[in-house]
Amino acid sequence: MTTPFAQRRRALRKQLDEAGLGALVVTQPASWYYLTGFTGEAGALVVSAQGTMLVTDGRFTEQARREAPGVRVILQVRGLSTSLGEFLKGAPRRRGKVGFPAGHLTVAQFRAMKRAAGPRVRWAPADGYVERLRGRKDAQELAVMRRAAALADNVMAKALTILKPGVRELEVAAEIEYQMRLQGASGPAFETIVAFGERSAFPHARPTDKRLKKNELVVLDMGAILAHYCSDITRTVVVGKASPKIRGWHKAVQEARTAAVAAVRAGATCGEVDAAARQVLAGYRLDQYFTHSTGHGLGIEVHEDPRVAKGQKQKLEPGNVVTIEPGVYVPGVGGIRIEDDVAVHSGETEVLTRSPRDIIEI
Amino acid sequence: MTTPFAQRRRALRKQLDEAGLGALVVTQPASWYYLTGFTGEAGALVVSAQGTMLVTDGRFTEQARREAPGVRVILQVRGLSTSLGEFLKGAPRRRGKVGFPAGHLTVAQFRAMKRAAGPRVRWAPADGYVERLRGRKDAQELAVMRRAAALADNVMAKALTILKPGVRELEVAAEIEYQMRLQGASGPAFETIVAFGERSAFPHARPTDKRLKKNELVVLDMGAILAHYCSDITRTVVVGKASPKIRGWHKAVQEARTAAVAAVRAGATCGEVDAAARQVLAGYRLDQYFTHSTGHGLGIEVHEDPRVAKGQKQKLEPGNVVTIEPGVYVPGVGGIRIEDDVAVHSGETEVLTRSPRDIIEI
Repeated sequence: MTTPFAQRRRALRKQLDEAGLGALVVTQPASWYYLTGFTGEAGALVVSAQGTMLVTDGRFTEQARREAPGVRVILQVRGLSTSLGEFLKGAPRRRGKVGFPAGHLTVAQFRAMKRAAGPRVRWAPADGYVERLRGRKDAQELAVMRRAAALADNVMAKALTILKPGVRELEVAAEIEYQMRLQGASGPAFETIVAFGERSAFPHARPTDKRLKKNELVVLDMGAILAHYCSDITRTVVVGKASPKIRGWHKAVQEARTAAVAAVRAGATCGEVDAAARQVLAGYRLDQYFTHSTGHGLGIEVHEDPRVAKGQKQKLEPGNVVTIEPGVYVPGVGGIRIEDDVAVHSGETEVLTRSPRDIIEI
Repeated sequence: MTTPFAQRRRALRKQLDEAGLGALVVTQPASWYYLTGFTGEAGALVVSAQGTMLVTDGRFTEQARREAPGVRVILQVRGLSTSLGEFLKGAPRRRGKVGFPAGHLTVAQFRAMKRAAGPRVRWAPADGYVERLRGRKDAQELAVMRRAAALADNVMAKALTILKPGVRELEVAAEIEYQMRLQGASGPAFETIVAFGERSAFPHARPTDKRLKKNELVVLDMGAILAHYCSDITRTVVVGKASPKIRGWHKAVQEARTAAVAAVRAGATCGEVDAAARQVLAGYRLDQYFTHSTGHGLGIEVHEDPRVAKGQKQKLEPGNVVTIEPGVYVPGVGGIRIEDDVAVHSGETEVLTRSPRDIIEI
């Protein structure tokens, strides 16, 4: 029986072959999990026509042998980069260069690997091969991501029930992350954002001791990791009554979200999706307050390819899962953000997160 | 009034000056927090005699201006590395080279920064300057770390009360992280390890659905982040009755821990501390099962300088805080680890974590 991991390695080898690369060094944990199933915290892969080799240290060799059948596990004796270099030096002479992840390997790691490999190995920066494969989720991955999104929806519903004047941001964040784990998540996909009042104007506010006051804005931004895949959802509500100004901003952000989701389809560029959100906000003269990009790819990592940002030429493909998360942030007043996870299909686009999106007055 | 952040920048500038470096690029979040108080998630610093400049993107500029007084905040327009390079190109001509973190900057980032800076900037790999300063905690940092350790002790005591046959690893991990936050932690310092039975033989086991059986080993390894500083503690207990073999292993690990703590003092090398633990285990013929290093520095990051590992020549200094965490791991049977956080002083060594260390039969 072929595992999905072995299938992915085969797809990668095909791409390397087409690019004239004899081997690829893979150092990102999310990518080595994707290619092998290995969940340890340290190591690196070399994928080539001769097979896949995983080098890791003594804490993880036993685990690697169990988790990654079909992969040769090598105990790292000196530094990881040096071990990689020595392996590449001793490996049978290959056609083509050895691709390395210039966007992930540090200058020091690359220098150590190069030194250990000696002068006969030829190198080529080779980023994005595994990332592009990871971007096109298969049916099995999409099924897991639907469950991760549903889990986030459930936790969002639960979180809204504890929003009462006097509650602290940190308490709400703790409850959210606790509920995730009780529902089967291995943990939060990122530090949960709970921002009350003026603090909602910081897009990445960390929860503090601040207590909720009546009529304040509340931004809740959370995501769960379920069976190695992430979800990511944001809702903005008011505990009390929203002012007409806040209602207006919320309506604008909601329309921006709807326009961006409608722009998502296979073949559209990420820049077009971003522009769809930005145009709506410009119509309300709020685009100056939308200070980040419209979204990002989602999968084993909470931020992965593709980026849904201004001017991005990359085209959406079936299997991509991206967030759509426009917002407006007015310093000293507050912020609004609405975020959903969206799967691209050759047919109709699928919105994975389904929590109510209207402004909710609790 | 001088903030501790400004004092640290001054200490760093003095070191750069002595090393003949005109400026230093700092890209690690823990280091930019240490030097400026900025808690945003993206950015980089340039520290030089002309002052400190923080480049960050639109999500964080407002926050940076509030959190980092005395630091010039620059909005990143193109990529971070390109913005850094352009700043360095336009900066007044400096004496000396620009130091860059070869151990943190990726090959691609360094290439982009170099390209944008042009041919007149001269570069030198310059790792470890901020890390060494961070290793020597001041009185204020030590006070916070004592509180972070006490918090971990409290949570450990609480966790032991919920260990009953039938409980799942994931439930215990969820409860531990929930308790941390209720007690004021901003979150766990790392993914909490709860490993039952055979799974305790994996030093870095992730919690699963596995239910606890009677007489099984339980390894609990947890740490909290409190006011930006980490704690890290491990205890191993048995729910039921420990076999004579398990009791023997536990006794050996406890003696190894005691010997390593006794070896900690200003002027001792990290390798000597590691050897102290390993010698005790060798006396019990268990050293082959101790498959990782004895400990690591602890502070803003949960793993930082110095490494307490085999052959490490680095000497301990007053202000260092390190973990001491020997263990034995027998594949297919189980594992034992005991870990404490230890502060090095010019006088007597201080053990920050105080949970009971005897084998506990619950």
